[in-house]
Amino acid sequence: MHETHTHVTEQIKSLLATGTEEALIDFVDTLHPADIVDLLEELDEAERSTFFHAIPADVAADIVEELEPIDQAELIRLMGAERSSEILREMDSDDAADLIAELPAAKAETLLDLMDIHGEDVRELLQYDEHSSGGIMATEYVSVHSEWTVEQTLSELRRVAPEAETVYYIYVLDDDEQLVGVLSFRDLVVAALDTRIDAIMNTNVLSVPVEADQEDVAQLFKKYRFLALPVVDKENKLTGIITADDILDVFEEEATEDIQKIAGTTPLEHPYFSSSIKELWSSRIVWLLVLFLAASLSGGIMQKFSTAMQTMIELTFFVPLLIDCGGNAGSQASTVVIRGLAVRDIRLRDIWAVMARELVVGLGLGAVMAGIGFLRAWRVGGSSAIGIVVSLAVLAIVVFSTVLGAILPIVATALRVDPAVMSAPLITTIVDAVGLLIYFSIAQLVLQV
Amino acid sequence: MHETHTHVTEQIKSLLATGTEEALIDFVDTLHPADIVDLLEELDEAERSTFFHAIPADVAADIVEELEPIDQAELIRLMGAERSSEILREMDSDDAADLIAELPAAKAETLLDLMDIHGEDVRELLQYDEHSSGGIMATEYVSVHSEWTVEQTLSELRRVAPEAETVYYIYVLDDDEQLVGVLSFRDLVVAALDTRIDAIMNTNVLSVPVEADQEDVAQLFKKYRFLALPVVDKENKLTGIITADDILDVFEEEATEDIQKIAGTTPLEHPYFSSSIKELWSSRIVWLLVLFLAASLSGGIMQKFSTAMQTMIELTFFVPLLIDCGGNAGSQASTVVIRGLAVRDIRLRDIWAVMARELVVGLGLGAVMAGIGFLRAWRVGGSSAIGIVVSLAVLAIVVFSTVLGAILPIVATALRVDPAVMSAPLITTIVDAVGLLIYFSIAQLVLQV
Repeated sequence: MHETHTHVTEQIKSLLATGTEEALIDFVDTLHPADIVDLLEELDEAERSTFFHAIPADVAADIVEELEPIDQAELIRLMGAERSSEILREMDSDDAADLIAELPAAKAETLLDLMDIHGEDVRELLQYDEHSSGGIMATEYVSVHSEWTVEQTLSELRRVAPEAETVYYIYVLDDDEQLVGVLSFRDLVVAALDTRIDAIMNTNVLSVPVEADQEDVAQLFKKYRFLALPVVDKENKLTGIITADDILDVFEEEATEDIQKIAGTTPLEHPYFSSSIKELWSSRIVWLLVLFLAASLSGGIMQKFSTAMQTMIELTFFVPLLIDCGGNAGSQASTVVIRGLAVRDIRLRDIWAVMARELVVGLGLGAVMAGIGFLRAWRVGGSSAIGIVVSLAVLAIVVFSTVLGAILPIVATALRVDPAVMSAPLITTIVDAVGLLIYFSIAQLVLQV
Repeated sequence: MHETHTHVTEQIKSLLATGTEEALIDFVDTLHPADIVDLLEELDEAERSTFFHAIPADVAADIVEELEPIDQAELIRLMGAERSSEILREMDSDDAADLIAELPAAKAETLLDLMDIHGEDVRELLQYDEHSSGGIMATEYVSVHSEWTVEQTLSELRRVAPEAETVYYIYVLDDDEQLVGVLSFRDLVVAALDTRIDAIMNTNVLSVPVEADQEDVAQLFKKYRFLALPVVDKENKLTGIITADDILDVFEEEATEDIQKIAGTTPLEHPYFSSSIKELWSSRIVWLLVLFLAASLSGGIMQKFSTAMQTMIELTFFVPLLIDCGGNAGSQASTVVIRGLAVRDIRLRDIWAVMARELVVGLGLGAVMAGIGFLRAWRVGGSSAIGIVVSLAVLAIVVFSTVLGAILPIVATALRVDPAVMSAPLITTIVDAVGLLIYFSIAQLVLQV
């Protein structure tokens, strides 16, 4: 169905070198903007510049919308302000705002001025927090007045369809521009042409405020399976629209952030290869340092029991095993709970239920591990006494880590701290120290060292 | 805009007890199916049964589609086969298939037989792997023939609109039922009524085969920002349609699976509270056991160097710190790379670029940590020699763990193993053993113990 990548690249290169502008435009017309993005990598700077000057601005806009922010900025630099603003004018306002937000202030101002009326829309969008509904909405919605007829609405649709983000929902406003209803395309198709809109509109219209958190908005899309959701300001005036494709990005972005936080790194702003070495470094050093200092705790406990270890050096053999055991059991529990909280499977009020379940799961896991731990410690340590010490320690550590790992993220939520901060490395460090304390205490009690 | 939860629950309870069926139906009509799901929790079994017998089957179907699988199965049991099949007939075929796949075979057969012609559609969907496009597609698409006019198409739309999953794309078939084009609603609105469909359809229609992996399909939606995508069989015949709302579920499901694998648990089939204690236990025990056995490696290395430790017990104080350091640095790198692979930011061919970047990042992280490690070991261990040993070990361990953590997931991808298997706990265990070996070797060399 699609021609091969290399073949298409060659064709574009030869059209850029020797073809007419019309031939190039006709060829580009057969390709999807998202595919052209892949081809751009193969062109050199001069070819890329020629390309973006030759094709119509609206086609260029569709392509630029698909680029990564770092490539967009590079392209703006390459094309100059005049051509850039032509293309920006054709972009959806939400995408244009995202692009301009990444540019230096002076450059952004120049472009916004050149964009005229479109620049005003974008300026307004730039005021909102980038993780709020205002930050992800577009201003290209379709709205009609409640006293219009179906026929008037259809002709308005014909007029705005090429510009709008989505024409699948039509929003109905009253005389004060307040949002009073919504129509789906389905409703229009099945109605007679002279029907009044307020006779067929759905008045039970759900909207979100401009300052709503994008993660909450994403959960609304998931729950109600919307294709689009209107955004209103404090006076219930329609100010924008969020579409399902924006929400796909939010879902992926939020999952990536959670995953990175769970591993104890500050979430990266950009994709891996768009992040500088310095950004990669600084996203990781903070937690490493915190955990490094916290690991001193475990060191202190080792120090406290150094006489015991000197008396019976075999005790040290099981330190890595016990540490890993607690860390792993704790991370498993915390990760499952952090994700459960994120997708709203687990709520604050479930804390006791989670604790009870994890206690049982922890006992089940600990019992098996304690059995194996006993056999191994007996064989390596040379006495059943050391076997008993290790297996009791394993049981206690696994139960403690499992319950703590499950509870901490919920406690964090209650304290309005991001549960993902209760990440695997932090829990590992806590249970390391406590685990060693448990282990050596049992050893002193049982072995009298 | 929405009445409070308790208020609505009370109203439904009183309508069930004393109201007429009409009053109940009218009231339910004002609520969104997704909101009714929340209310159902508050009803007892008898009330729930009355409720689902009183409301029209198509409304009931919309509600059942929103339920978790475990609640759907419970409801089917409560309602009996006759009423269940009436409701199933009104459900979208993909949702009906998901529900029936969860039931015992005998029960499923009874229901499928009662569903008549709808049962046949569902039977067909049940053949496909649940993670393939066949497994997530629905059969309720809108298709027209290429020689039809816009007017014929509009009247077909009026006929099928209430049943179809989406009416926003209309698929165009030739005489052999092959998929030859696609029309959007936009195209229809702006065309004259007597225009032939093949004159305005887009022939560059992208489709996916029934056996395509749902994760690949999700990436197509993300790249091309589709609202829906047609699914074809081996002969390019249209067999179903995947809509953007199904893809939201796929995105969340895949992210949850990745997160759980990264923490070393087998992904759970169901949400947290729908999973039994046994399922929670068995999702975690496998990796814990593997890692427990692997931790024996570290134990063996400790044993090998027991004389050194006995001579200088201070060496043991830093074991937890070094172990955590390597584990944390390794998990950070592996998690970032696993996620980068999942969202296609990192590809197989990037292995050398990733290795080079991570080497530099690891050196940067290791240098800082080595500095702090030197000061701490000097103070606690009482000699600058032990400070040198610890700081050299920290540097080597952090660099090694960072590079290994980043590379292993890419190697796994090359070997067609899921990169998320190269999870934090596995990497922790590997770098534990290697880290201890590095540490004690440096210690023997420098301190001559």
